[in-house]
Amino acid sequence: MDAIKGKADQGMQNQGGQMDKPVSFHFLESMLPKAVKRRVHALKRLQVQCANIEAKFYEEVHELERKYAALYQPLFDKRRDIVTGTVEPTDEECEWQSDREEEEELAEAVKEKATIEDAKKEETTPVEDPKGIPEFWITIFKSVDMLSDMLQEHDEPILKHLKDIQVKFSEPGQPMSFTLEFHFEPNGFFNNAVLTKVYKMKSEPDASEPFNFEGPEIIDCEGCQIDWHKGKDVTVKTIKKKQKHKGRGTVRTVTKQVPNDSFFNFFNPVKASPDGEMDEDSEFTLATDFEIGHFFRERIIPRAVLYFTGEALEDDESFEEEELEEGDEEQDEEGDEDDDDDGDFDPKA
Amino acid sequence: MDAIKGKADQGMQNQGGQMDKPVSFHFLESMLPKAVKRRVHALKRLQVQCANIEAKFYEEVHELERKYAALYQPLFDKRRDIVTGTVEPTDEECEWQSDREEEEELAEAVKEKATIEDAKKEETTPVEDPKGIPEFWITIFKSVDMLSDMLQEHDEPILKHLKDIQVKFSEPGQPMSFTLEFHFEPNGFFNNAVLTKVYKMKSEPDASEPFNFEGPEIIDCEGCQIDWHKGKDVTVKTIKKKQKHKGRGTVRTVTKQVPNDSFFNFFNPVKASPDGEMDEDSEFTLATDFEIGHFFRERIIPRAVLYFTGEALEDDESFEEEELEEGDEEQDEEGDEDDDDDGDFDPKA
Repeated sequence: MDAIKGKADQGMQNQGGQMDKPVSFHFLESMLPKAVKRRVHALKRLQVQCANIEAKFYEEVHELERKYAALYQPLFDKRRDIVTGTVEPTDEECEWQSDREEEEELAEAVKEKATIEDAKKEETTPVEDPKGIPEFWITIFKSVDMLSDMLQEHDEPILKHLKDIQVKFSEPGQPMSFTLEFHFEPNGFFNNAVLTKVYKMKSEPDASEPFNFEGPEIIDCEGCQIDWHKGKDVTVKTIKKKQKHKGRGTVRTVTKQVPNDSFFNFFNPVKASPDGEMDEDSEFTLATDFEIGHFFRERIIPRAVLYFTGEALEDDESFEEEELEEGDEEQDEEGDEDDDDDGDFDPKA
Repeated sequence: MDAIKGKADQGMQNQGGQMDKPVSFHFLESMLPKAVKRRVHALKRLQVQCANIEAKFYEEVHELERKYAALYQPLFDKRRDIVTGTVEPTDEECEWQSDREEEEELAEAVKEKATIEDAKKEETTPVEDPKGIPEFWITIFKSVDMLSDMLQEHDEPILKHLKDIQVKFSEPGQPMSFTLEFHFEPNGFFNNAVLTKVYKMKSEPDASEPFNFEGPEIIDCEGCQIDWHKGKDVTVKTIKKKQKHKGRGTVRTVTKQVPNDSFFNFFNPVKASPDGEMDEDSEFTLATDFEIGHFFRERIIPRAVLYFTGEALEDDESFEEEELEEGDEEQDEEGDEDDDDDGDFDPKA
């Protein structure tokens, strides 16, 4: 997120963000007596040193995250096994408050009505005991707008074979990165058991803009080659085109492969240009891609079940409402709310 | 911030946040075959375990922060000494890129004009070499809206005696908290050398709402008694009131002390009610107070010089503009941006 914000930020500044600033800091500084200005510069040098210490802090947080990833993993593995039906949880493992509540409600309610509804339920759900939790991941993809925007109808039968999504962190001493792993069961679409996307990160202040440092940011990403079965690649479509021979006037039909919208284009990434020479579209695509990678890592992987049931979505919605309300009430406040968000660092990004 | 968001969140839900939700998760869950629902409950139990691990992670991050606070401290002490004029930085310590740029610009510019402007500057700044960086902290108070909103004219002469603001973290093994310390030089207003405000935090999932856990949140705060010199307490004002004796009809004038707006009310906090029986106003005041405490800790103390020069404010403004722009373009996106902010944990909060 910080990477994205940072980029957009720069864009805004270039587009004339300077316009309605009441007092520029260059102006303020130029107004100061020389001796004072000198001292302010000394403080700025100290501030750069702070930014360098902060970078070390974020590196240590990253270490902590690696350590905790190992603690979460057994729980995530268990989740995968329950989702795929490899393991059937015990009764104790399934006890949940709402079970008891429902039982009590049922006891009080008219039994007859309950029986009718049970009968109805059986009609609409023909398979009474499917394997694991069917359509677990695809339900999440459909529920989260950021993902459903990418999802095409032809992606759905493929994503039904998605068994698990995991995040792996870079090893100590390696450049900071995280890898999203999409684990598939054998399927009729491609040979890969795992599709990967690596997000490379940077956790050091930029020499030219040390004060903009707000913690690790995603700087680049890399997808993977999908080994599609013949004719199954949904990221391309074949179009037929009529070609007229100029001299002879004969017409022939040629087929041509063109890109096709698909979630699986996620593994076929736009490369961040090293010299910053990207057009706006590519820049936007890349920013969106970073945002999606961050979202998988930060929200979906750690809380998948809450996106499946919709609980996480409800939180997000009421949060969004609250933001709007606050904005209305406090429209005179100069983005302090934003400051905070800016300041909140994101150890997993 | 998280504490505040959380609170506001709940408020929204109570006020009818349920209204326009397309599919409630209770509905989705009730549609699932019994065997599947059972497995979903098993995943929820795993999710609670994840939240408990996450709480330990945040505790370790807090330890890290304590460790890094000690690394920052010498730089902050140096800053204080330069601001107060106790230490004069060396030429080397004051070298800053803009010095060189300005020299080059000057060389190119018409020397005469520069001379005129220098002369002007001298007129407007009669004291050519004051002690340290005069009005350092009060300039910050005036620049940041969240603080200037609290600032009254009668606070300014007092805040000119503010030497430093520091943050201290709770000791290992103690309940998580941080203390803001406002260090004053001897002054004619009160006897305290340091005014303090403690923010108490909580870093464990709530038993009744484990999925709402998003990291440490501020749960309470405590100010301090200010030992005002006689007649100098700006947080109260004396009003005269005429009283008529009912029987005799005589009129006498009585004086009465009533609360007065002042930044120093910050040390006279609203207490968070343990049973949640607060009116909306108090809840709002408390939320604002938490936000301010967080802002001091997270932004102002670590980057004071950038608020003094205005550089941090410019960042915040362009960040705010960008947010608006994004909102316009992506108004159909269901708060994914917000999710991220929600998910970004704040290790210093």
